[in-house]
Amino acid sequence: MNIQIIAFDADDTLWHNEPYFDEAQDRFCELFQNYASKQELLSLILNHQVKNLPIYGFGIKAFTLSMMEAALQLTNHQLNGKTMELIIQIGKDLLLKPVELLPEVEEVLTALKGKYKLIVATKGDLKDQHRKLHDSGLGHYFHHIEVMSDKTEMDYEKMLKRLDIQPQDFLMIGNSLKSDVLPVLNLGGHAVHIPYHTTWEYEKIDFEIQHTNFKAVEHINEILNLLV
Amino acid sequence: MNIQIIAFDADDTLWHNEPYFDEAQDRFCELFQNYASKQELLSLILNHQVKNLPIYGFGIKAFTLSMMEAALQLTNHQLNGKTMELIIQIGKDLLLKPVELLPEVEEVLTALKGKYKLIVATKGDLKDQHRKLHDSGLGHYFHHIEVMSDKTEMDYEKMLKRLDIQPQDFLMIGNSLKSDVLPVLNLGGHAVHIPYHTTWEYEKIDFEIQHTNFKAVEHINEILNLLV
Repeated sequence: MNIQIIAFDADDTLWHNEPYFDEAQDRFCELFQNYASKQELLSLILNHQVKNLPIYGFGIKAFTLSMMEAALQLTNHQLNGKTMELIIQIGKDLLLKPVELLPEVEEVLTALKGKYKLIVATKGDLKDQHRKLHDSGLGHYFHHIEVMSDKTEMDYEKMLKRLDIQPQDFLMIGNSLKSDVLPVLNLGGHAVHIPYHTTWEYEKIDFEIQHTNFKAVEHINEILNLLV
Repeated sequence: MNIQIIAFDADDTLWHNEPYFDEAQDRFCELFQNYASKQELLSLILNHQVKNLPIYGFGIKAFTLSMMEAALQLTNHQLNGKTMELIIQIGKDLLLKPVELLPEVEEVLTALKGKYKLIVATKGDLKDQHRKLHDSGLGHYFHHIEVMSDKTEMDYEKMLKRLDIQPQDFLMIGNSLKSDVLPVLNLGGHAVHIPYHTTWEYEKIDFEIQHTNFKAVEHINEILNLLV
């Protein structure tokens, strides 16, 4: 391995994220608990999110708009203004959540800084991800942040071109096999998977990955052993 | 001038945009014409947009959410579900608009390609701006697109660092004096202003710019004379 650039996924790799979304969805489910089961409500939101991905992309604003649509469908448009405002507020609260670092992230970045060009490569809302990187206090470890509209092979291909780097010199580290690992391996890059205790339904895959350029670890500090 | 990178603003510089927003706002005003004058309705939307900028940033999803808030305020939350859906649809229609190039954009890009590194530097929704660049058919002229969370001096500073270029070797071309010209001049870069026939209220400034690194032109093809 002759890695030159290491890209870290952000949400649930550097800092906690999915539990905030779960909490937000719980609030939505509470508002509509008389309409359907929690499982049905979560499916409904997901359906609208996936349907809207091609135009909205990822992130909290898209999530908010999809919750609104789910609520309108669920109530057969008998939604009152106060409830709509509460849905908007669920989204705004997500955008104002504190950034809580995952354990040992800072120690690992300290050890890697100067030895590699470190970047953040994430999906989500542009403004929100910039805000979180700022609030995390991790900004000075990274050369820059790449907010990607998606994490398909094509998106990584564009990013690698922009970074002017060959795939074999690039390492992606993240918690999503689907978004952080598979497309990078397919391009000839390296990838490390660090699982997070909960995964968004949309990011789940149901097969195992075996590849010479792939490593799975349990904790972020194990990547130091891989890179030495 | 020893320009190495030329960055083009996208909306209302490469392709039409503001008229689509005007049309969207007209549709909103029609929905609520019994509540307030058009001028009052437009102000109300703008107020919510500006208030939400720090968390939502720019773009159509933010615009949609701000229209929804404006409608809730206007009706004192007596908003029915069908109208809410229409507001969401106004936003979605904007995200599906065809991309109409401005005159002579393609000729100018053809003349500059190969002589400079050309990029797109724009605000707005990440997904939407990537979509528009793709649909415009202009993608192959540009090294890449930078979707910026805002266009302040700090945002340009970060971008120039990422591009690994000195400000004096950088030229920004766009229709907004506030976003495309002033911050770039303040950093020591070059800027060319090409006015568009209509400007979003938020982008207006009320003074004239005189600066050795600044040129104002009427049409995009005039930049070829400046660069030869």
